[in-house]
Amino acid sequence: MTTAVHPLDKDDPLAHKRAAFHIPANTIYLDGNSLGLMAPSVHERVNQALRHEWGDDVITSWNKHGWIDLPVTVGNKIGRLIGAPEGRTICCDSTSINLFKVLCAALQINQGRQEILSTEDNFPTDLYMVQGIEQLLGERCTLRLVSEDSLLQSINENTAAVLVTEVNFRTGRRLPMAHLSERARKLGALTIVDLAHSAGALPVHLEANDIDFAVGCTYKYFNAGPGAPAFLYVAKRHLDAQTQPLQPLYGWLGHAAPFAFAVDYAPAQGIRQFLTGTPPVLSLVAVDAALDLFADVSMHDVRNKSIGLANYWLECMDKHHLLAEMPSISPAHAEERGSQLAFQHEQAYAICQALIADGVIADFRAPEYLRIGFAPLYNSYAEVESAVQRLAKIMQEKRYLNPKFQQRNQVT
Amino acid sequence: MTTAVHPLDKDDPLAHKRAAFHIPANTIYLDGNSLGLMAPSVHERVNQALRHEWGDDVITSWNKHGWIDLPVTVGNKIGRLIGAPEGRTICCDSTSINLFKVLCAALQINQGRQEILSTEDNFPTDLYMVQGIEQLLGERCTLRLVSEDSLLQSINENTAAVLVTEVNFRTGRRLPMAHLSERARKLGALTIVDLAHSAGALPVHLEANDIDFAVGCTYKYFNAGPGAPAFLYVAKRHLDAQTQPLQPLYGWLGHAAPFAFAVDYAPAQGIRQFLTGTPPVLSLVAVDAALDLFADVSMHDVRNKSIGLANYWLECMDKHHLLAEMPSISPAHAEERGSQLAFQHEQAYAICQALIADGVIADFRAPEYLRIGFAPLYNSYAEVESAVQRLAKIMQEKRYLNPKFQQRNQVT
Repeated sequence: MTTAVHPLDKDDPLAHKRAAFHIPANTIYLDGNSLGLMAPSVHERVNQALRHEWGDDVITSWNKHGWIDLPVTVGNKIGRLIGAPEGRTICCDSTSINLFKVLCAALQINQGRQEILSTEDNFPTDLYMVQGIEQLLGERCTLRLVSEDSLLQSINENTAAVLVTEVNFRTGRRLPMAHLSERARKLGALTIVDLAHSAGALPVHLEANDIDFAVGCTYKYFNAGPGAPAFLYVAKRHLDAQTQPLQPLYGWLGHAAPFAFAVDYAPAQGIRQFLTGTPPVLSLVAVDAALDLFADVSMHDVRNKSIGLANYWLECMDKHHLLAEMPSISPAHAEERGSQLAFQHEQAYAICQALIADGVIADFRAPEYLRIGFAPLYNSYAEVESAVQRLAKIMQEKRYLNPKFQQRNQVT
Repeated sequence: MTTAVHPLDKDDPLAHKRAAFHIPANTIYLDGNSLGLMAPSVHERVNQALRHEWGDDVITSWNKHGWIDLPVTVGNKIGRLIGAPEGRTICCDSTSINLFKVLCAALQINQGRQEILSTEDNFPTDLYMVQGIEQLLGERCTLRLVSEDSLLQSINENTAAVLVTEVNFRTGRRLPMAHLSERARKLGALTIVDLAHSAGALPVHLEANDIDFAVGCTYKYFNAGPGAPAFLYVAKRHLDAQTQPLQPLYGWLGHAAPFAFAVDYAPAQGIRQFLTGTPPVLSLVAVDAALDLFADVSMHDVRNKSIGLANYWLECMDKHHLLAEMPSISPAHAEERGSQLAFQHEQAYAICQALIADGVIADFRAPEYLRIGFAPLYNSYAEVESAVQRLAKIMQEKRYLNPKFQQRNQVT
């Protein structure tokens, strides 16, 4: 990178946010869609929780430092970034566990319908969770998979819920939530949206789009740290209509009176009933602090920059004549994409390894895609320019043929 | 406390471990059975994970720093402290979620039997989790509750599994695991043991006692921090007999090949199939570091000191003539107790608050019990002596009648 500021960075209203993150030395990090970077303010907050809250105040911190309310207070901070009013979002457990809760809730609410309709190319864990419920509930649940293109017309009178990830984890294709919701509602199906690649990357309008349930992850664009607790959203109509517990993982923290230690479960009012066990506080305060970095940020600016970075990446690749050799499998129109691009090449794995060796962290997705994530809060246009230059050199030199880049690791 | 070393502490082979913990200023902490104290080595380890692993190495840490294997490596460290051979124990999720997994596994293995037999005074969340499964599975699962005294003779030919917490969370009563296991096996029932108040407090022999499944918590006697990930144990015979997935929470990290992103779930071999989603790494490295404090400790010494501290507490209360006014509800024989004592008094809540105000952290359990936990790694005999002196003064002065101690908080 040159010392002169890239002209596109000069005009970037989010350019100042980069300073809030720890940028690893000699690294261009384009994998924020797998794991966001650490901000020193998050580090400091976790330190504080360790030293003063757990260390000095120990058990009294559940009251004194509001640990007991963290799933709700952090949930509300997330809610503001995904178009959810107060009291609809909670931060807890993993995305998979939360998906189990809302899938069971949907099947219960839409009793008489068995089908969970999803896309063949949905993130596998989402499909696995439905397969687990199929095994558990037998004929009360059936998973049906269709292509993204035929999803809307595949909804029928037996569809209990449509389960989609808004942004495809491989291609970055963004599915139209408003259309989906309208069509599903018309046919009596509920909507469950996985926001793993949306939350923190683009504006989400859960309430406005009349989505029934959503889940999502905080360790990607929310930068909350590896495996940080996930979130879960429930539409008001379901919380209000509660006549029995909405989800089957009846843990004590979802009880109406957890410290009464009553023998019988009685769900808490509202979103709190979606809690199960005791939350991992150290990881949860990291989410809390990470979200504060969004406090002065408009999701409109985030989206604009995300599109700007991706378009600039394509422009640079075009300039280096790379797009014929490794074509994009992402939608051509920016509005139809999330905050990533993916490129097909039979050597994608080795190309990714060669990039990493050259200080550009991207990732590989099976079977043969190089995935580039753009995190608008810390990525710069200068990084994009430099990363594509390095990619061009790797391709030109066929550096990916080096045997050391061909060897597969467990995680990429 | 006097500056001279208490004679009982002088003879304590674990006395040196206290220095490994951060002891909050002016505090006698007798609530390690709710949340163990922080050790600076744990703080340092989490800092390391924040600064160098997440901060510098970001996504590459999943391989480079073994994050992907943490549930298994940490699980094995726990296994050594609960009588489990390598590869039977995993660290993940909350105790409640793990209980759901093993309850479903037991019902599947023991198909044709519907009953989960448990005790009326089991920790409520354990019972709630069964109630959730009852709601989900209908007649395929029924919870039956009996008294602790009649548990063994209540097992019958419809009992799929007996679910017990080894040490009662209120009374501290320890149930005989070997007898339970033998009786259950004879009648074809499986055993599920919650080790929340056992792990780290007393020797546990899961394999030797032929227990089928166990779950437990790491934030009590393992000192791993608030809401730290829980653990789960499965007997070898069930892992070996696997013909289909053993548990229904099919998450991607329990898949045989998580990074192949296949559409269909195929469980990993062995204990790894009990994983679901991505684990909270910051909380998990805290467990890892906390367990290292047990590396040079014999659980036999831990048990001896636990009994020593409790007996000395009773002796001191007797000396102050407190036992008539607030009788112990814990078993008289130390062998029949865990590492805590509980005392009944109609003002137990206010007495607990008065103790806390006087620097003694104990806890209250509804409806009217004062609970005293002994953590053999950091509690001292001098602390016991001093705490009982303060309790005696509070009782003598009826300080608990002060209105400020009567006001109820959410968490105690």
